[in-house]
Amino acid sequence: MSLALDDLRVRSLGACEYDSPFAEMLSTKRTSPHYVAEDDRVLVDDTVSVLLSHGVPIDQVPSFEAAGPRKKIYFDPAETTVGIVTCGGLCPGLNDVIRGIVQELTEHYRVKRIVGFRNGFKGLAKDARNSVTDLTLDAVRDINNDGGTILGSSRGAQDPDEMVDSLLIHEVDVLFVIGGDGSMRGAMRLVERVDERELDISVVGVPKTIDNDLPYTDQSFGFQTAFARATDFIASVFIESQAAEHGVGIVKLMGRHSGFIACYAALSVNEANFVLIPEVPFGLDGDDGLLCRVENRLREHGQVVIVVAEGAGQDLLECDGAKDASGNDKLGDIGLFLKDRITDRLTEVGLAPTVRYLDPSYAIRSVAANAYDSVYCVRLAHAAVHAAMAGRTQTVVVRWRRRFVHVPMALITGHRNQVDPDGDLWMSVLEATGQPATFGR
Amino acid sequence: MSLALDDLRVRSLGACEYDSPFAEMLSTKRTSPHYVAEDDRVLVDDTVSVLLSHGVPIDQVPSFEAAGPRKKIYFDPAETTVGIVTCGGLCPGLNDVIRGIVQELTEHYRVKRIVGFRNGFKGLAKDARNSVTDLTLDAVRDINNDGGTILGSSRGAQDPDEMVDSLLIHEVDVLFVIGGDGSMRGAMRLVERVDERELDISVVGVPKTIDNDLPYTDQSFGFQTAFARATDFIASVFIESQAAEHGVGIVKLMGRHSGFIACYAALSVNEANFVLIPEVPFGLDGDDGLLCRVENRLREHGQVVIVVAEGAGQDLLECDGAKDASGNDKLGDIGLFLKDRITDRLTEVGLAPTVRYLDPSYAIRSVAANAYDSVYCVRLAHAAVHAAMAGRTQTVVVRWRRRFVHVPMALITGHRNQVDPDGDLWMSVLEATGQPATFGR
Amino acid sequence: MSLALDDLRVRSLGACEYDSPFAEMLSTKRTSPHYVAEDDRVLVDDTVSVLLSHGVPIDQVPSFEAAGPRKKIYFDPAETTVGIVTCGGLCPGLNDVIRGIVQELTEHYRVKRIVGFRNGFKGLAKDARNSVTDLTLDAVRDINNDGGTILGSSRGAQDPDEMVDSLLIHEVDVLFVIGGDGSMRGAMRLVERVDERELDISVVGVPKTIDNDLPYTDQSFGFQTAFARATDFIASVFIESQAAEHGVGIVKLMGRHSGFIACYAALSVNEANFVLIPEVPFGLDGDDGLLCRVENRLREHGQVVIVVAEGAGQDLLECDGAKDASGNDKLGDIGLFLKDRITDRLTEVGLAPTVRYLDPSYAIRSVAANAYDSVYCVRLAHAAVHAAMAGRTQTVVVRWRRRFVHVPMALITGHRNQVDPDGDLWMSVLEATGQPATFGR
Amino acid sequence: MSLALDDLRVRSLGACEYDSPFAEMLSTKRTSPHYVAEDDRVLVDDTVSVLLSHGVPIDQVPSFEAAGPRKKIYFDPAETTVGIVTCGGLCPGLNDVIRGIVQELTEHYRVKRIVGFRNGFKGLAKDARNSVTDLTLDAVRDINNDGGTILGSSRGAQDPDEMVDSLLIHEVDVLFVIGGDGSMRGAMRLVERVDERELDISVVGVPKTIDNDLPYTDQSFGFQTAFARATDFIASVFIESQAAEHGVGIVKLMGRHSGFIACYAALSVNEANFVLIPEVPFGLDGDDGLLCRVENRLREHGQVVIVVAEGAGQDLLECDGAKDASGNDKLGDIGLFLKDRITDRLTEVGLAPTVRYLDPSYAIRSVAANAYDSVYCVRLAHAAVHAAMAGRTQTVVVRWRRRFVHVPMALITGHRNQVDPDGDLWMSVLEATGQPATFGR
Repeated sequence: MSLALDDLRVRSLGACEYDSPFAEMLSTKRTSPHYVAEDDRVLVDDTVSVLLSHGVPIDQVPSFEAAGPRKKIYFDPAETTVGIVTCGGLCPGLNDVIRGIVQELTEHYRVKRIVGFRNGFKGLAKDARNSVTDLTLDAVRDINNDGGTILGSSRGAQDPDEMVDSLLIHEVDVLFVIGGDGSMRGAMRLVERVDERELDISVVGVPKTIDNDLPYTDQSFGFQTAFARATDFIASVFIESQAAEHGVGIVKLMGRHSGFIACYAALSVNEANFVLIPEVPFGLDGDDGLLCRVENRLREHGQVVIVVAEGAGQDLLECDGAKDASGNDKLGDIGLFLKDRITDRLTEVGLAPTVRYLDPSYAIRSVAANAYDSVYCVRLAHAAVHAAMAGRTQTVVVRWRRRFVHVPMALITGHRNQVDPDGDLWMSVLEATGQPATFGR
Repeated sequence: MSLALDDLRVRSLGACEYDSPFAEMLSTKRTSPHYVAEDDRVLVDDTVSVLLSHGVPIDQVPSFEAAGPRKKIYFDPAETTVGIVTCGGLCPGLNDVIRGIVQELTEHYRVKRIVGFRNGFKGLAKDARNSVTDLTLDAVRDINNDGGTILGSSRGAQDPDEMVDSLLIHEVDVLFVIGGDGSMRGAMRLVERVDERELDISVVGVPKTIDNDLPYTDQSFGFQTAFARATDFIASVFIESQAAEHGVGIVKLMGRHSGFIACYAALSVNEANFVLIPEVPFGLDGDDGLLCRVENRLREHGQVVIVVAEGAGQDLLECDGAKDASGNDKLGDIGLFLKDRITDRLTEVGLAPTVRYLDPSYAIRSVAANAYDSVYCVRLAHAAVHAAMAGRTQTVVVRWRRRFVHVPMALITGHRNQVDPDGDLWMSVLEATGQPATFGR
Repeated sequence: MSLALDDLRVRSLGACEYDSPFAEMLSTKRTSPHYVAEDDRVLVDDTVSVLLSHGVPIDQVPSFEAAGPRKKIYFDPAETTVGIVTCGGLCPGLNDVIRGIVQELTEHYRVKRIVGFRNGFKGLAKDARNSVTDLTLDAVRDINNDGGTILGSSRGAQDPDEMVDSLLIHEVDVLFVIGGDGSMRGAMRLVERVDERELDISVVGVPKTIDNDLPYTDQSFGFQTAFARATDFIASVFIESQAAEHGVGIVKLMGRHSGFIACYAALSVNEANFVLIPEVPFGLDGDDGLLCRVENRLREHGQVVIVVAEGAGQDLLECDGAKDASGNDKLGDIGLFLKDRITDRLTEVGLAPTVRYLDPSYAIRSVAANAYDSVYCVRLAHAAVHAAMAGRTQTVVVRWRRRFVHVPMALITGHRNQVDPDGDLWMSVLEATGQPATFGR
Repeated sequence: MSLALDDLRVRSLGACEYDSPFAEMLSTKRTSPHYVAEDDRVLVDDTVSVLLSHGVPIDQVPSFEAAGPRKKIYFDPAETTVGIVTCGGLCPGLNDVIRGIVQELTEHYRVKRIVGFRNGFKGLAKDARNSVTDLTLDAVRDINNDGGTILGSSRGAQDPDEMVDSLLIHEVDVLFVIGGDGSMRGAMRLVERVDERELDISVVGVPKTIDNDLPYTDQSFGFQTAFARATDFIASVFIESQAAEHGVGIVKLMGRHSGFIACYAALSVNEANFVLIPEVPFGLDGDDGLLCRVENRLREHGQVVIVVAEGAGQDLLECDGAKDASGNDKLGDIGLFLKDRITDRLTEVGLAPTVRYLDPSYAIRSVAANAYDSVYCVRLAHAAVHAAMAGRTQTVVVRWRRRFVHVPMALITGHRNQVDPDGDLWMSVLEATGQPATFGR
């Protein structure tokens, strides 16, 4: 393809001489995974091969191995037993992934035995009882119609040696771990023990997070289903706030460290006036603060809708530093906090607000995958099977820039994907809500 | 980031010595936009800047300009009038794009006047009456809740000089054309006349196709909504075929030249046994042909489900070479043809089939955009506005590898995106249906 | 309750002196199951007991036995085997009824054995193979999530003696027949043979018809789900017709003899301009005919939407008197006929219409029951079980004026429920569409 | 029709000699609006006319006037101004009713002016500003696609004389009040003042309650939509409880005095193990109490789902007797109370439960009406218009036993409809959940 830099038409009758309304906002931005600066460009081709002809020393350019079937595989399907385990919180698509793995292994590789461990890593612990179930084609036939996971789940780690023992008891050669970053860390500890004991067992991960906070991942599976469901609740409080004289609607959505659900759901409904996410701190007080802005909005328009991610504004709360079973910080309840503070403020200034607060929580994550996520999950499952049968281990399969690739487990647990305050997504949210880039700080 | 080629763990206890069930299928594949070969890799970073440090002559590597707001803009918002036109067949999200453009222009750029031309390019023709409507914030407030387009649409070209005259009459500085590749060709002819007459009018496109056959585009807007809707009909004939003794379900889906809707819908429901698309020819007769395979499947399993794209198997039909108003070939009805041939064959061999045939056609494309497409459309709309205000013309905005970019109109109309018979998607379909890569040829 | 005729407030400051716009339409109407005349009234209480105190000879007033559990039952649950069969076309809720029967029999009556006969009455025929399946709690656990029937279905009669033989072979004491009026006639022939052979077998029916044409029935199960689904297609052609310059949308809906689906779906979407049903003949030609009215509407409003029941206007078609397997007349295709005639007419008069025609057929009846129908089906199932265990036979359970009652099978097959051209429903359709009460006749 | 008492077939080969499992439960039941006793029957015909031939003194039998158009009407449409007001909490279908009233008045009666009062009765108060909006065909065109009410709403009474003044200022002849029983009482006070001031103004009500607690009403509009939405949340906690080792799901649903939403939603999903409603008291403690039963269920089945109406078990809470703006008692939060008590109990006994609690509240009532409710609302609206134009006042329109009738306002506010613990519905709930008729009392 001969496409080059200067093919694009820019008006030549005059220079760009007017200041953009976004000029200030753009002044400090640099290219990142979420933004391309004005003086940078996007490659048309995203594979290493394109660089070879230009003499780039290929082993120095960061790149991922592509996922997919291989001509030669490591495990002899006729002699291979496979295990599957699902860990952590529910997420739409878990059953689709289980089903896709079982179907691919059975119908194409002709693997004879696939077992599921129940209740997450607990099912691999020493004293787990009745924790193994056979996963046949019939057992997974229409499980994709249901949310949740037929294998059950749990949070928290188990002793890695006990887990290896369980794999040996059930003669498992390949273990698929479907779980979040805590589970992937658990899987890595398991691989360490496998290595130390010089066992020939592979562990392949399918990373799961409803918050979409995985690095090197376009969107985590189930995310689209989740934010689509979340839009229903924004629409509800919008309708409620519209029907009252001084109507205030507040929805708290999932997102401990990353506000993706809040951003996408708000963009989709396009009725939110304020979107509050963990990545962008905000203040309550002062002329510039949230309370004043909410009040002003209510005076001008008679209604206001706020979408807040559960991890937003944690600095405003007094937390006790408690942890949950997965070792995550327990968050303070920013939703109830905002509800109370906003109600107090508006009541003080005589606006007699009608405040509607929704915290849909589990109602969002327990639904069955939508059409898109169903396809995505089955393709992820196929990729995971190919990776494992070809001998990859301590590896996860993800989609990056719409390519399915293999990523070392350590990379995926190394840091979180977040909404980039300089990126395209947050810019779209600012454009859609009309809220300022920062306030109250 | 220090990620390099050898970070990934492959089992080292033994080589990959077993033949993969996919070995033959893989033997001829090379890296393409739809597939990465085993000996190639995927770049982690997809911007030009990464190559600079390696001394790559940057103007020789194909790349796209990133979309998004610019610090300086070409048009003075206070003096700019904008026009919008929607062309061709309906597609979920048209109203979302219109609304996003109007909101961005009004709320951020403070453009004073935006007009919509009714009924596609017809509304720009000389004798169009009442063809212009004002697009205010209020006029577009909740149009995203409805399918279709509030501006109406039409197929076919109009005289480009008349269209330029209409733009002048309404003092339009920027025209947004939302339409398919025929419409983009129309837009290019319009730009030619603008240039010849040395006018300062920009034309920016938002490419639309329900078939997802745009090159350099991750997925065309509305596509996810469309295939999600299509799954309902596959589910219907599956249920029908299951309830009868020798049940045959056939669904014809959109896809004149590209079988994306058929592939994605079939993957999502995962109940189809045969997916027939334009890109992969098939034969009816012989032991290897579709009819025999359908018969065998019915004998073994008692039911069979077939999903066929409207453009599939056209070589099997006798067509008269007629064209529609957009200049597209009129297709023969492969759905009814297959229904008849399959019914005849199964009746002949004494299976007394119950055949259920559905042709949902317009029912799929007229729905409102789902949550994902709503977000996608609003972000495309924002990008289109930024492009136009910064003086781009003869340019479309698309999403490529999850980056919003500017692409010259000529590139987007140059060829079609198709399901790559060597690519990941078709592989997933083959894995999910269990159908052979080719049959009857 | 002391409520009497004169409790209602009518304005007393003046008489009703103005002619109603409905005066003519009302002039010939009399009280019927679908309409209460002005000089009649509706009883507050609908049970026989209220009449006793007034000395009404109670055995002369038509009444139904109430459904529900009895204190004493006829069959000893510990010794009873139950059979279930589903017949005729699919209808939302079939699986809900099966599940409700199995759950009630198992959990409350502790019946030990329940079998399902596959593929309708075919499964009771002499040469049926593998036609019986055990229906346990586990087998029916979540079948309500799917459309169709897990037992399969078929049309047409089987030899009643063979069917009785099958019941004896499987030691069935109670047979539940879920099916339409043809199936109920089949069930009655079966009961005749049971009686002649002096067997102690009960046959209880749960009447099914997606057309809602059962007499003495509020609404047949699945009907609400079906017409809700049908609304999607009316909305589709409305959107399509709106987007074209002279847009015509036509939807053909189920309804062989009764236009209930057409009426309810049209009322729900409220975008149809003409609703055509079997009960109300119409003509095409003349100033008063459909074609002229469609043309006028198109000239005035630019778009028109027509909803036609499959059994409407059959007198306009030339039919060959063929019958289907259930003995029903094969209908001519009124939808395609209207599409062609309307297209011809509008083209002739130079309106260059864009005609969109949809025939959703099976797509409407194969979906899972909605929330309302789920509840309705489970309650019908409970009532059917109570009836059978209490020794009722040749009986169906239905809901009449929101009471579950027992009705002799002969009554339910005696005639069809139809949309009463004098009734409230058709009046609502006329009010909503604005179409005249009759035209072209 | 010659249908008589003895037409129904009961097995004659033997008497009903076995005790029914329901024998005890049935022993005390008598015919009521919710139940027909074994020795009573249901009339086939529900009109007064049937009784005349039997010489019943017709004015002594309680009966309702049928709704519908009249031949003569009271108000001259050409001279009539109509007002509409919506009061109280949101309910699916409000916009459908508004739209139906406006369309019927405009298209059929040709009434020239219709105004909406904003924010409930507040919009009729003395100092209301900008409280009146014109309701044209265009203004209501597609409002049915949205939940809520375009007119806004409020709780609480206003001075009736001020309200009459507002009607006079706007020259309103007919006022439609869409609201709950509090609003109907407000409407009655307004009528009193109209009468005292000898004004010729009619007030007609369309009763609204999401709780379905209206007497003489089959189901209140919006109820089906509401309970359908509620099922999503039961399904969510069911999925969650299934995925955990000792999973407990609790959903609190609307229902201050009546548990209809809880009952219907639980029947529809059929996964609840306990349904708790205001009409059926229950205790927590003792071997027979809820806590013990939940514990037992969890030990046996590993999961438990509880659906609780907000008004259930109020005697277990310590309330302060506070009232809301409508004068309703403020309820204690039975949902959180049960969540805490159940968590404590299960933790105490070492079951380490995973408890998921959802309180969807406003998310249920703010959605748009489903297909059924859309039809129902438009027909109610038509009936209301006919009633008002024919001079009825202080009257509401309702559907009773599937007939639309006129009911005096006083009757509808006199008492509440409740789930009858002896009725068919509660019986179905007991059958579906398997819970005992009472426990812990």
